[in-house]
Parts: sequence; structure tokens; C-alpha cells
Amino acid sequence: MRKVAIIGIGQTKVGEHWSLGIRDLALQASLAALRDANLEKVDALYVGNMMSGEITGQEHLGALVADALGLRGVEAMKIEAACASGSAALRVGTLAVASGMADLVLVVGVEKMLDTSGRETTSALAMAADAEYEVSQGVSFVALNALLMRRYMHEYGWKREDFANFAVVAHENAMNNPNAMFHLRITPEKYAKAPMIATPVGLLDASPVSDGAAAVVLAPADYARTLSPAPVLIRASAVATAPVAVHDRKDPLALEAARLSARKAYEAAGVGPEAIDFFELHDAFTIMSALSLEAAGFAERGRGVALAVEGEITRTGRIPIATMGGLKARGHPVGATGMYQVVEAALQLRGLAGANQIPNARLGMTQNIGGSGATIITHILERMV
Amino acid sequence: MRKVAIIGIGQTKVGEHWSLGIRDLALQASLAALRDANLEKVDALYVGNMMSGEITGQEHLGALVADALGLRGVEAMKIEAACASGSAALRVGTLAVASGMADLVLVVGVEKMLDTSGRETTSALAMAADAEYEVSQGVSFVALNALLMRRYMHEYGWKREDFANFAVVAHENAMNNPNAMFHLRITPEKYAKAPMIATPVGLLDASPVSDGAAAVVLAPADYARTLSPAPVLIRASAVATAPVAVHDRKDPLALEAARLSARKAYEAAGVGPEAIDFFELHDAFTIMSALSLEAAGFAERGRGVALAVEGEITRTGRIPIATMGGLKARGHPVGATGMYQVVEAALQLRGLAGANQIPNARLGMTQNIGGSGATIITHILERMV
Repeated sequence: MRKVAIIGIGQTKVGEHWSLGIRDLALQASLAALRDANLEKVDALYVGNMMSGEITGQEHLGALVADALGLRGVEAMKIEAACASGSAALRVGTLAVASGMADLVLVVGVEKMLDTSGRETTSALAMAADAEYEVSQGVSFVALNALLMRRYMHEYGWKREDFANFAVVAHENAMNNPNAMFHLRITPEKYAKAPMIATPVGLLDASPVSDGAAAVVLAPADYARTLSPAPVLIRASAVATAPVAVHDRKDPLALEAARLSARKAYEAAGVGPEAIDFFELHDAFTIMSALSLEAAGFAERGRGVALAVEGEITRTGRIPIATMGGLKARGHPVGATGMYQVVEAALQLRGLAGANQIPNARLGMTQNIGGSGATIITHILERMV
Repeated sequence: MRKVAIIGIGQTKVGEHWSLGIRDLALQASLAALRDANLEKVDALYVGNMMSGEITGQEHLGALVADALGLRGVEAMKIEAACASGSAALRVGTLAVASGMADLVLVVGVEKMLDTSGRETTSALAMAADAEYEVSQGVSFVALNALLMRRYMHEYGWKREDFANFAVVAHENAMNNPNAMFHLRITPEKYAKAPMIATPVGLLDASPVSDGAAAVVLAPADYARTLSPAPVLIRASAVATAPVAVHDRKDPLALEAARLSARKAYEAAGVGPEAIDFFELHDAFTIMSALSLEAAGFAERGRGVALAVEGEITRTGRIPIATMGGLKARGHPVGATGMYQVVEAALQLRGLAGANQIPNARLGMTQNIGGSGATIITHILERMV
């Protein structure tokens, strides 16, 4: 099994791209990644995307994006795992290079969420939940997260305001990210006063609906240094699942698939959470940040929120998270998010994160969540030079 | 790179499954494949599907099917490449085993097309075409194939009735396939009198809208014999693409991606078309059969129809096709079709094709087409014992 490295990265700004279609977004990020890798051709293209069918009436994104890029004839397909589609595509790209069936692979995550009514977007997001047993009851994605947050507060005695720092830190970090959707500092007071969406989830607990695309180029690690001045090694890539319907999980607050996915990743990398310099987690909702920190071994059960309260999630804290703004403030174009996490981790590991640079970052971890915890994909990335 | 073998196969009957949801269909085929492989667990699950979001309001099929199967925790995701989604999932499963990152992999192709109005199905199928440049002009999938067929007849001088045998042979072969949608012999006269859908495409040129699922279990070839009495080797697996929009192709009748995909497959297998004992091609429309035969090297340009006219596509002809009924008569549940082709090829190679057995079949080829020729996936399978 060959080791795999990232030799090029690219991203579009996250935001409301009313003038760009899904093809344009994928194209921009992909061309940036190819340019960064100094390549014009690859052997295969894997596109991570969740809702192009529902929102844009367009499936078949593999062939569509391949042609738009001028990669005529190349192997291409779309990979879907709800909001974890981006890193699922990276997983497939990694398999292709690791197997030896491809040498140079382009992976792009893309989502266009804003070319529609809000109703359609909510309905498209609900396709990540169980249509027959959850959505048929009228549950939206925000509502599912509200149920989890409420239960968490009940079990462990936390109050709403204890979650504030997840949002405050993300918005602070986004200030220095030119590609972030929001450049807007918030305070715990603003968090407390934010309108309720689904109690106890307020507007500032939730990530925004966004358009965007992010991409990487992969190559065999053994000659990555000849192709890139600053390659990044994929030390581990691990996928795990849990029941889609929250009520089917034995212990909904355990985020069992995150625990399993992180454990597999640590085992593959031969390290534990103490070795991780920063953690790009899936802060679609503040409750997800708490659960993800716990499941990945950075906090005991019920203590994930304590890391926020105690300031340990900032860039100088024990475990920096959302270092470029996270889903909350960089934005959350669902099928692209996993690739934004990886591109941002690569920026940190290359020492190119600007004002947000984590000093001497050597090992970064990303964790991308599909649904309310049903698909969890963890990658551990390492600086190669 | 490890060689990969099929050690279990399963399928549901193709048809109108009004009482079964997409989860049920995937479950039935998957359980049959696991039973055939005498396994209860696998390391990963890849689901091929095109339109579950549009038709059933359900994405995230990877985690959904994994949980339904009791494969709690397992790696899972959905793969989409329009009507080539099934074999795209097989491609990813092959990469996983070849890379060494997984040993036992379940691949299932599934589609539920009938739980909706016909209008929605036509609209969902159109997502395989270019939404901005083709569908926005009002072109449906049948219409695109009608344009290709008309052009082919114009270029090479064939008449409509020359295509009849593609349908007649498929329906004849389906008579002995208990899982086929249609058990109904047709004649060239019936073909000629069939109602027009989009001239020159008549009702008997087109495959039916169907529900169904088919699955295989994969394992490393070097110990496949210890797991199965009749494993089938995946000698080659090749994906190629062309522009999605037909008008963007230099030569729409060349089916360039099929040519490229077949060439890559022949090279990987170290054989040419003369070594292939039977060919499960993508007869979604009779014109696609002709173009696929030509692109895969079984006929010269413009001469694919001659193979039908001369009876060379029957079970005793030069190149038997659609040996269990093909898309035309077994049925075409789009995201499952590629897996049906592979399961049927495996039946032939195991000598279990009953009355339709191709004597001494050793090498079989499948070719699955996404869109009107934009994604083409070719597999060459070999009998191992």
C-alpha cells in the first residue's frame, strides 16, 4: 500500500455566489489546486457533493467537472456521504493512489446551496437524515441538533451561554481568513442575544448556508517532494458510520462513529490525541463541536464544553479548533466542507496560515460529520518538510 | 497492487416494487450476496445509486444501508455517476481491496424509480444530462438518444427495423431469467409496430423504468478460493469520461469514452475483443448497443447494427450480449444496472446461468454507460476455477 501526499491545494471564497453555478465553483477551486501543484493533467477526479441533484437539477458531476477542466477522458465520479461528502471523496482519492491504480488524483468538494428558496435548502439538508423515520415526522436538521443540545445540557448541567466560545473563537479566527464567509467579530453577549432557531440552538450556534468549493491534488508520497516544495502526508484516513436515525443510537451523545473513526485514525497514524497540534472539527452546530472533541479523545464525556469555557480551543490553547473560522464562520457548503478542513489543515502544516498560524504545527486532524453523527471521516495530516 | 475477486453475488427481481423502499431493495440484494459469500461482516460498503435524493428524498445511503444490514460502524458511502453509478461503486470497492485498506467489501447498486409520478422520473433521469446546456432546452434522455439514432441511420444508411434484433434477443434471453422484469417474447413485427416515443426511438427500443438492486462481495484474489468455491477475478476495471453535453463531443457517434474505457480494460487484462466470450453491454436504447459494440471493438464504425441483423449477438453468435435480458428486458433500475451486469456475468462465469449458459465462458466483459455516453465503465471478469 503506497503512502499518499497532498501536493496542491485550492479553494474559492465561501459565501453567496449568486453569479456562479456549481460547475464554476468546482472549476475555480480545482484550477487553483492544479496550479498550486504545477500540473495540467491528472489520472482521476473525485467530486464530493451532497445536493447538486436537489438544488441544481444536476447529477453526473464527475464527467461534468472533468470536461469543464479540460481533463477529457479522465476517470471521474461523484461521492456522497451527506455533509461528509468532501472527505469521502478524499478517502476515495486516497484509495486510488494507495492502490497504484492512479498516480495523480484531483479531489474537489463543491456545494451550491443558494440558488433556490430556503425551503428547498432545508428540505435538501434533511436528505441526510432518515426520510422514513425522522423526516416524515417533520424533524429538520436544526431540530435534531437542538434535541441533542438540550439532552446534553440536561445530562451534564451546562447552560446555553457555556457554548458561546465555540462561536466566538470561530468568528475571531475567520477575521484573518480572506476566504471566510463572515468577517464579523462576535461576543458572548451577542451570542446570548441571538435569535432562537430551535431552542436551545440560536442563530450563533448554527453554521450558515453557503456556496463554495475546495480541492487538493494527491500523489504518491515517495515522490511528492519532487512535485511540491511543501507536500503534506496523509498519515491516516478513516471512515466510520452509525445509525442515521438519532433514535436508533444506543447513546446519542456518545457520537459512536466519531469515536470509532478517530480510534482507527490514531491507530493508523500510531499517535494519540496528545500528539495532535490542531483539530479542524465539524462545528455545524456548537453541540457538534462538544461531542466531536469528546469522541476524539480531547475531553472526557460531558466535558467538551469545558474546553470552550476555559479558552483551550483558541489558537494558543491546548487544542486549537476551527483555526480558519470553522464551519461556523468560514461557512459550511456541505459537500465542500470536508475539503475546506483539509485545505486549511494543509495551509497550517505548510506554515502558510498567516496571522492564524499555529506555531510549529506538525500534525493536524480533520473530522467531517455526515448527518447528525451517522458518517464520520477523520484524517490525520503531517508536514513532510 | 492486490488482485481483486468476487466471492459472492445477490440480486432482487427487477420490476415494480411498490411495497419495497430503497432501503429494503438494497438490503435484499446485499443479504443475498453476503449469504452467497458465507459472510456476516465486511470492512466497507459502497452503494451505487443515482436518484435517491430526487425520488425518495433520501441521500446518505451509505450509512443508511450499513445500519439496515447490521454492519454497525462500517465504512460506507454512496457513489454516483448517473446510470453508471453501479459499476462506479464497484470501481471504488476494487480500489479499496486493491489498496490493502480493506479486505472484504460489499458493493450494492440500487435504484427505486417507481415511487413517484412519471414526470419526476423523467426529470430525475435528465440530471444525467447537462442541466444548463441540454435540459434547459427541454431535451429529455429519450430525445437525446433519438437524435443519436437518427444521425446514425442517416450516416450509415440503416433503417429502423434493422435495430429490431437488439430488442428481440434481449426479450428472448429474459425468458429464462427469473429476476427479469419482462417475460414476454417479442418479434420483429411487434418491434416495428411499437408506439413511437421520440422518433425514431419506439417503445421497444427503450429499456423500462424499474426498481431493483444487485450486489457483490469482494475479497483479495490470493485467498478468494478459500472463501468461495467459484470466485470470479476482476481482470480489469476502467473508467473514462467524455463531455456530458452531446453537442460538445467532436463526434457523437464515436462514443469516445467507451472506446477509451474498453482500451484501458483490454490493456489491463492483456487481451483484445476476440478473447471476450460474452458482453453485457448497456442497451438502455438500441442505438447504445450499436455504439457500444463498435466502441468496444466488436464491429467497425457504422457496423454495430449488422451484428444484430446477422444474428451474431445471440447466445450462439460471435458476441453474445444481454445474455440474461439486458437493460431492455431484465430492466434498468439505473444505479443498480452496472451491478446487475456484473452479477449476471459472474453467473455465466460460474456456469450457473441455466438455460442461458454460454458454453465454456471464461472471460466476460461488462460496459455500463452514464448519460448518453459521458461516463463509461468497463470491467473484464474471469472464471477462476
